[in-house]
Amino acid sequence: MSAIQTAQLMDGTGLAKRVVEEAAARAGEISRRAGTSPCLATVLVGEDPASVTYVRMKRARSAKAGIRSRQIGLPATTTTAELVDSLTALSDDPDVHGILLQHPCGPHIDERAAFEAIAPEKDVDGVTMRSFAAMSFGLPGFVSCTPGGIMRLLDAYDVDLAGKHAVVVGRSAILGKPAGMLLLAEDATVTYCHSRTADLPGIVREADVVVAAVGRPRLIRGEDIKPGAVVIDAGYNRGNVGDVDFDTAVTRARLITPVPGGVGPMTIAVLLAQTVEAAANQLGIPHR
Amino acid sequence: MSAIQTAQLMDGTGLAKRVVEEAAARAGEISRRAGTSPCLATVLVGEDPASVTYVRMKRARSAKAGIRSRQIGLPATTTTAELVDSLTALSDDPDVHGILLQHPCGPHIDERAAFEAIAPEKDVDGVTMRSFAAMSFGLPGFVSCTPGGIMRLLDAYDVDLAGKHAVVVGRSAILGKPAGMLLLAEDATVTYCHSRTADLPGIVREADVVVAAVGRPRLIRGEDIKPGAVVIDAGYNRGNVGDVDFDTAVTRARLITPVPGGVGPMTIAVLLAQTVEAAANQLGIPHR
Repeated sequence: MSAIQTAQLMDGTGLAKRVVEEAAARAGEISRRAGTSPCLATVLVGEDPASVTYVRMKRARSAKAGIRSRQIGLPATTTTAELVDSLTALSDDPDVHGILLQHPCGPHIDERAAFEAIAPEKDVDGVTMRSFAAMSFGLPGFVSCTPGGIMRLLDAYDVDLAGKHAVVVGRSAILGKPAGMLLLAEDATVTYCHSRTADLPGIVREADVVVAAVGRPRLIRGEDIKPGAVVIDAGYNRGNVGDVDFDTAVTRARLITPVPGGVGPMTIAVLLAQTVEAAANQLGIPHR
Repeated sequence: MSAIQTAQLMDGTGLAKRVVEEAAARAGEISRRAGTSPCLATVLVGEDPASVTYVRMKRARSAKAGIRSRQIGLPATTTTAELVDSLTALSDDPDVHGILLQHPCGPHIDERAAFEAIAPEKDVDGVTMRSFAAMSFGLPGFVSCTPGGIMRLLDAYDVDLAGKHAVVVGRSAILGKPAGMLLLAEDATVTYCHSRTADLPGIVREADVVVAAVGRPRLIRGEDIKPGAVVIDAGYNRGNVGDVDFDTAVTRARLITPVPGGVGPMTIAVLLAQTVEAAANQLGIPHR
């Protein structure tokens, strides 16, 4: 028997599988009742190999869940105006229920302008300003997929957030900022840390819940994890390394996500679940 | 000589006066160059005495700054749909440059639906979802007036926020949440506290900057203010009492806003400044 207490691993792979199975069942029901299956449009500018791989993976998972996908591949020379036109056309197309713009799109594209061309009811990736505000104000809408996946993991492991101190490391528009807003909506006390934070270790040591979302390998030291804390590592760096020093953190935390197999698989699962929900809303298929 | 070190007071009355003078000068320039002066529409539902007073004050200050106001008084029985229609008409009216919906509007009104009927370019009170997201993402747009006033105060007193720990007590959509986002944009480490926070005094004790925005008299004890901290009290309670125990806090802080005369006057000043800016944008009068 080991003398070292180890945390329970939060099984994102298993939870994602259940989320996708539910989405698939619902997609089947929609298909039977509406005569058409949910459709996700994936928009890719250029041929960045990592982006091509991500889109291919999302399309393959969609297909397995009974979600059609429509692939829009635009040349690397596409302008912001052309991309906005393409997204506007998809927003207006009644046969498309969800829209995913694979990003980053490249430095010549105004990504914010592109995102804003996505109709809110089709924003299944949760990237529009309206979706962010809805997350922040607790209003109906689609959430950013990775923060949404984090919240589902916390819920699946019965983590009570009310009054707890949640520390979010990272403040990107699609991950850190919305994650903090969703935690705040669950009544956590939320601290946003980032590259300019003066004493990151000192703040992490106070955290009941740590969400690492910055993309810097092992930025968060295991010895700074408070004993019994919940550690969500949304970082994904070269060599399957997260933002948290897992080997030490696992000896102190109560719950921790592995990398890979923690947050990662949840992102696509939430994308698929939201696509199915969008289709149900647009096709007028109420929940059973 | 007193043995007690006292903080410098942050003079919101004086700063607001300067902001309004600048707005008035700019309003005069707009009037000369465009042949029409900036116009703020104030919309009031019902006759709540406090709301009537606020609107009257905003109109009087507007007039002194060379801003016309158009008063829309709607009966207390107005429905959300009627209010939305009224706000939509003002959004479409080229003679109106800014729109202020005095709130709260009463329990039978869906305030969010009403706010969203305000065109973003006329949202000089910074209440729309788009304005909130713009504040959060550092994009152009109008800010919520009270948080905007707080940021101007911090700037006027040369408070360097980068890397500092700012604690925001309160999480309302028009005050606490946007204040935190604006502080984060200035590279502060930001903690949101609220009624469910487990150890508010413990977190306040770590704060380099405290923003109290909750409306509970003397919720924040003076002895919890870290020596040398900056204290912004946006609370305003009966009897001219803020959310911070001023008498003790002033012996520990480096800078502190009095109540009244601190944050309060800044709110209207920012409203007027943003109305003039909106008019300049809509009338095509570039800044000198």
